[in-house]
Amino acid sequence: MRAAIHQAAGTVTVGDVPDPTLVEPTDAVVRVVRACVCGSDLWAYRGVIDRPAGSRMGHEFIGVVEEVGPAVTTVRPGDFVVAPFQWSDNTCPACRDGIQVRCDNGGTFGAPGTDGGQGEAVRVPQADGTLVAVPGGLAGIDDAILPALLALTDVAGTGLHGAVLAGVEKGSTVAVIGDGAVGLCAVLGARQLLGAERVILMSRHADRTAVGRAFGATDVVAERGEEGIAAVRELTGGRGAQHVVEAVGTPESWDMAIGMARAGGRVGAVGVPHTAPQLSLFPPFRQHLTIGMGVAPVRRYLPDLVERVLAGTFDPGPVFDLTVPLESVADAYAAMDQRRSIKTMLAS
Amino acid sequence: MRAAIHQAAGTVTVGDVPDPTLVEPTDAVVRVVRACVCGSDLWAYRGVIDRPAGSRMGHEFIGVVEEVGPAVTTVRPGDFVVAPFQWSDNTCPACRDGIQVRCDNGGTFGAPGTDGGQGEAVRVPQADGTLVAVPGGLAGIDDAILPALLALTDVAGTGLHGAVLAGVEKGSTVAVIGDGAVGLCAVLGARQLLGAERVILMSRHADRTAVGRAFGATDVVAERGEEGIAAVRELTGGRGAQHVVEAVGTPESWDMAIGMARAGGRVGAVGVPHTAPQLSLFPPFRQHLTIGMGVAPVRRYLPDLVERVLAGTFDPGPVFDLTVPLESVADAYAAMDQRRSIKTMLAS
Repeated sequence: MRAAIHQAAGTVTVGDVPDPTLVEPTDAVVRVVRACVCGSDLWAYRGVIDRPAGSRMGHEFIGVVEEVGPAVTTVRPGDFVVAPFQWSDNTCPACRDGIQVRCDNGGTFGAPGTDGGQGEAVRVPQADGTLVAVPGGLAGIDDAILPALLALTDVAGTGLHGAVLAGVEKGSTVAVIGDGAVGLCAVLGARQLLGAERVILMSRHADRTAVGRAFGATDVVAERGEEGIAAVRELTGGRGAQHVVEAVGTPESWDMAIGMARAGGRVGAVGVPHTAPQLSLFPPFRQHLTIGMGVAPVRRYLPDLVERVLAGTFDPGPVFDLTVPLESVADAYAAMDQRRSIKTMLAS
Repeated sequence: MRAAIHQAAGTVTVGDVPDPTLVEPTDAVVRVVRACVCGSDLWAYRGVIDRPAGSRMGHEFIGVVEEVGPAVTTVRPGDFVVAPFQWSDNTCPACRDGIQVRCDNGGTFGAPGTDGGQGEAVRVPQADGTLVAVPGGLAGIDDAILPALLALTDVAGTGLHGAVLAGVEKGSTVAVIGDGAVGLCAVLGARQLLGAERVILMSRHADRTAVGRAFGATDVVAERGEEGIAAVRELTGGRGAQHVVEAVGTPESWDMAIGMARAGGRVGAVGVPHTAPQLSLFPPFRQHLTIGMGVAPVRRYLPDLVERVLAGTFDPGPVFDLTVPLESVADAYAAMDQRRSIKTMLAS
């Protein structure tokens, strides 16, 4: 089959790889219907982190189950399924705590040595704990909602988790740092699922701002750094935002998050700190902040969000503004790297 | 009147200072009945932070109102009152958020230029928002509960706040780092007020361990650093504690807190990070931690805790293991500095 392969920083190709097969009795093989490129895929593409040449790429996909191992009971061949970006057994203590991304038997699609989502098919370990079947199957689904379902594999749940970690609730005022797909989904989750009254999106790109407004952002601040902090403080009566979502993961975005949070406020940080920033503890201590952080346990939110997408009450699909065939995956990476696309979908 | 005065690192004396008087219409003057020395008073005593020579010391006191300004309505001369370690109006937005230590009109007793608690009397700004009257007055109080009331001025509320920030609730397993008065009060608050089932106290001093056990610690770990982390993990099925209270504020104690927290757990940090430590963000991010921090808004808890002390259902008094007269304040500092006393009370 064909799959995206990391060759070197700046070079992702499509090549022939062995078809996936069942290895463990808890495995499934899923034929990919839609996949996409994640902002975090760009870290290796940009050379910020190392990745072995020849490793497979991508961790976001939806597809149809082809085959299941003898121990799999919750999905069967023919089911149309949504996978979170990590597999998990959903039964271990970490999973029961709702931290499926720290599952005792978990792993990440696209990690070196595993199948990536950016390919024609994927071996899915721990299929019972990982895959969520879409009622009605692929035949019962309007193609128009495929982008929304695909967004659930990572960015929709990650953005929502950021807002959850930030303690957003009905009537909240929230600032969102990061206008990538995760930040935009934080806007959507905060407004539409958690009931925030006011969402200030930090954004300076017209295409992203437009999606942010459509997702419910009530204010947009283009400034960054100290100027961005000052702008948010001015919008919040001088006191800062009670809830802040950090969806970037750089030292600069952390400084902004701490600086714009109101005394006693909460920061939800879902931007992976790849560059391992150091946080000076005194400012958040002085500001009485509560900071929740971590890679989002997207699996926790999947069953509920699949239902909402099917019901037409939740649509993160507009984060996708470009679709290319798998064979053109290099174009997808280039478009996202150059910010010509917020998020690019790969059609089989 | 007589009051404790910081002369230099290692030298606190008692000297004659002007009697306090009303300055603002919102002031009260309180005659001190009991005061004490705080672990944070030792930072200047040990030369870790600078403090102007001649500045007054102490921020913990209980006493009797002598005089009130014309705008004061909630306390009157003769009332026996408990003061938190900072004054606050209890009406500004920060106070309404429950962060009275960030009051728009607040300040700290003993800060340079203000009256300290370690003296015969104190000018109390924002008396209405600050002081909590003890029903029945001093005459109605058994001297035996004075230590408990005095502990409410800082350590009892601070320890409880650490447990609150750590998300402790009925049935929780909690680890407490720090066996000073604040850490011990975190044990008491977690067990007695919040319903924790298991409290692991990190302690290697027999006197402190004994108080910790009396306050409800179910396990005591003497090891520190990586060994301490390993011991807590072993006590918690290998996964770490869901709730951790950090009551020290050093880089080492922070590393322990992050290291012993279970994935998805919560850390409540109330040890002031005087040395401005840097937190490496990757470990807590990887562990999905939520970290709440800040100087405790003790005023928030005072009315409830005063009632509990009077009812005999909450007694943080045993943190005091030494009492000396105000004139011997130098002995109090030396005893605490040398860890001969957990917390030393000053009797007028």
